[in-house]
Amino acid sequence: MKVIPIDFRAGSPIYIQIVEQIRQQVASGELKPDDQLPTVRQLASELRVNFNTIARAYRILDEAGLISTQQGRGTYILEGATPEVSRSIKVQSLQEMASAFIVEAKQLGFSLEEILQEITKANNENVIAEETNN
Amino acid sequence: MKVIPIDFRAGSPIYIQIVEQIRQQVASGELKPDDQLPTVRQLASELRVNFNTIARAYRILDEAGLISTQQGRGTYILEGATPEVSRSIKVQSLQEMASAFIVEAKQLGFSLEEILQEITKANNENVIAEETNN
Repeated sequence: MKVIPIDFRAGSPIYIQIVEQIRQQVASGELKPDDQLPTVRQLASELRVNFNTIARAYRILDEAGLISTQQGRGTYILEGATPEVSRSIKVQSLQEMASAFIVEAKQLGFSLEEILQEITKANNENVIAEETNN
Repeated sequence: MKVIPIDFRAGSPIYIQIVEQIRQQVASGELKPDDQLPTVRQLASELRVNFNTIARAYRILDEAGLISTQQGRGTYILEGATPEVSRSIKVQSLQEMASAFIVEAKQLGFSLEEILQEITKANNENVIAEETNN
């Protein structure tokens, strides 16, 4: 596996960056089925990020079917980055992000309705910002 | 200002943790109006987190009216943690989180409708998980 460059300044969550980098390395052929990945602990230490961040990235890739982690054996690339697997990775990423977002927003004391409203507002502002940039 | 303990393992974004800690220090009287806060650069270096993470936390506190940053003069506590300011901090935090979430989800290629659906699903799963824990 090539070194995974993490951009700590990016708005993008670090676990999403790791997911995306591994997906790209599989898509480019850099990583092939049956290649072994570092353990969660190894990669966390190498990238100097939290253990849970790597665990989260591996969980997304595992649930999408790109990798397989077997207790005691290690983590391996399961199959190539087919369009189905790539799509599944995006869906799993969104689920993980939505789940983290809901927990946090609930802790702040907001209702689902208020949360959905704020997301819609943020979306509209994002659309306006994009149009201004184009 | 007391040392701000950051929990890198928490699911909670670091900028939200910093916002919450400063709010609590004002609420407890540890920080008082006119007290000076470290600069973004100083606090980033002290907590070993990214410059932008602190800038984001300060922006939320500034927009909520708890602190005031004046170019060249520094950052000061503006007023006590009144219920209005505390509420405003929560709203600003949600806005910041929603905005980051939308940018990320759009980059993954999802529509607003898919995003709202996923948030609602995550909320329902969160409610079920909470009921199971009680």
